[in-house]
Amino acid sequence: MKTVYVALLGFGVVGRGTYHVLVENQKRIEKTKNVRIVVKRILEINEKAIKSSGLKKSLFTSDYNDILNDDSISIVVEMMGGLEPASSFIKAALKKGKNVVSSNKKALAAHLPEFKALAKKHKAHLKFEASALGAIPVISALDGNLAANNIVEIEAIVNGTSNYILTRMAEGMSYGDALAKAQALGFAEADPTDDVSGMDSANKLCLLADLAMDYYQAPGEIKRKGISSLTPARIKAAAEKGCKIKLIAKAVSKKGKVSLSVAPALVAPNSSLYHVDDEFNGIVVKGDKCGEIFMSGRGAGSIPTGSAVAGDVISIASF
Amino acid sequence: MKTVYVALLGFGVVGRGTYHVLVENQKRIEKTKNVRIVVKRILEINEKAIKSSGLKKSLFTSDYNDILNDDSISIVVEMMGGLEPASSFIKAALKKGKNVVSSNKKALAAHLPEFKALAKKHKAHLKFEASALGAIPVISALDGNLAANNIVEIEAIVNGTSNYILTRMAEGMSYGDALAKAQALGFAEADPTDDVSGMDSANKLCLLADLAMDYYQAPGEIKRKGISSLTPARIKAAAEKGCKIKLIAKAVSKKGKVSLSVAPALVAPNSSLYHVDDEFNGIVVKGDKCGEIFMSGRGAGSIPTGSAVAGDVISIASF
Repeated sequence: MKTVYVALLGFGVVGRGTYHVLVENQKRIEKTKNVRIVVKRILEINEKAIKSSGLKKSLFTSDYNDILNDDSISIVVEMMGGLEPASSFIKAALKKGKNVVSSNKKALAAHLPEFKALAKKHKAHLKFEASALGAIPVISALDGNLAANNIVEIEAIVNGTSNYILTRMAEGMSYGDALAKAQALGFAEADPTDDVSGMDSANKLCLLADLAMDYYQAPGEIKRKGISSLTPARIKAAAEKGCKIKLIAKAVSKKGKVSLSVAPALVAPNSSLYHVDDEFNGIVVKGDKCGEIFMSGRGAGSIPTGSAVAGDVISIASF
Repeated sequence: MKTVYVALLGFGVVGRGTYHVLVENQKRIEKTKNVRIVVKRILEINEKAIKSSGLKKSLFTSDYNDILNDDSISIVVEMMGGLEPASSFIKAALKKGKNVVSSNKKALAAHLPEFKALAKKHKAHLKFEASALGAIPVISALDGNLAANNIVEIEAIVNGTSNYILTRMAEGMSYGDALAKAQALGFAEADPTDDVSGMDSANKLCLLADLAMDYYQAPGEIKRKGISSLTPARIKAAAEKGCKIKLIAKAVSKKGKVSLSVAPALVAPNSSLYHVDDEFNGIVVKGDKCGEIFMSGRGAGSIPTGSAVAGDVISIASF
């Protein structure tokens, strides 16, 4: 059996989830995929995270060069979040010909064309299923089994926090109360700006559109409107028409022109997205060959996201 | 750019769809995937199909050895349907180390363990996205990005014909009229036995369970009930409870024991499958890590199915 050595960058929420999934399922992966996946090093400087992990200290390093210069490591899994040093670390790994798996939507959305060019030049794989829609396998579908299609439209709910808030508001709660409840449940950060402003959705839409339509637009340039100015009156008016307001990330390709947008929109019950409530995510992909395909599920969380990262690792390791 | 040579076995509905998708999207695939996919030979003996194709006659052969002994052909795409000679052709290709893509649920369900063992032994890829749920990319998801999960349950509508009939019956149509309408629209064969008896669903469930739960049960041994004996009274009773009757293919894994069944079942509005109507297919996959993931879309048709086959070809060719 082939053994594949992996390094994890970051041992936060997603890092721990990924480690857990890979170790817990190791025997099953060996049996079904005929490959042994071993986490060889973990880059982490937070002493508390290292201590509380219960793992042996020698697994951890604070020096990225220990990973970069270890030729036995063929897959680098970046889960640090944020632009830097994550982006530089991804580039350095690709330049070494190492395969990269990342869950970091911000770094990916900011640098995708450069990352892709480096991957192509150095014959490395770059996979990022966990960067959008969590455990829902739409990224690899667009990259793989839907690749025979010319994708003409994408409509998606990609931000669980704002969807949770909108679901509560549809039940009559105020924006402030709904946000507070989302924060109490851990669905929203202390600073929820990226979520409620649509910026998080724009990052994810950037990645989806690039894969689906081979069109890159920097996330900051995507036409964008958030949910924080939505009034109870507008939500009520939607309900009176039998509709819901959802924060929709949308990409349309028409006659070779692609346009991207993030904005609250009226969704009718005949749309699959109407039924995507609470913290869930959903996406409708329209292809010229496959017709309309809908997917929904959990878009966040340590273990669901970790399972998406681990899925990418398994795909590369077992091909 | 790498060139990958492909042979198609069968130029019927799916074969023509696949050829069309690969040729129409060739330039785009070259650009995004950096691989040139060329259909080198087509195995077909039906003179009418060959003549009406408009393709040059030298592309076609009636002798499988022309394909098997051509070392430049690395992917064999089997779309003949039926058990034989399709099964023997798949085995022969795998033994030669050729990668195999198949849309043939019957042959796959009957021989999956043998096919998988041959693929492993000869280091060939075996992919079959189009064999169940048409263009919905669930097969490659189970094989790839959901592989980090222990899948505990699958519930699916995998037969478009019976789902179309049940949708019409829920509107008050009799079973006979609904079947006749499905036949008139091309959703049902002249002999609809496999569809309405649940046999077609059993074939697909066999494949899904093998991928998801590493459990193989021959389709003929799967507990199975069809829709032909459903009475308008039972459908009406379901509607009075606010529910629908759907033909559900179900796999449950509990404490290491897997049980498979195909049967009409009551589906409530809070189930995602409730909204899968007409000829559409849908599937709920429950994993221990990813939670519940739902997918729906077109489960049949020349072009949607052809796009799923082409997606498999692209995945193998471009990795």
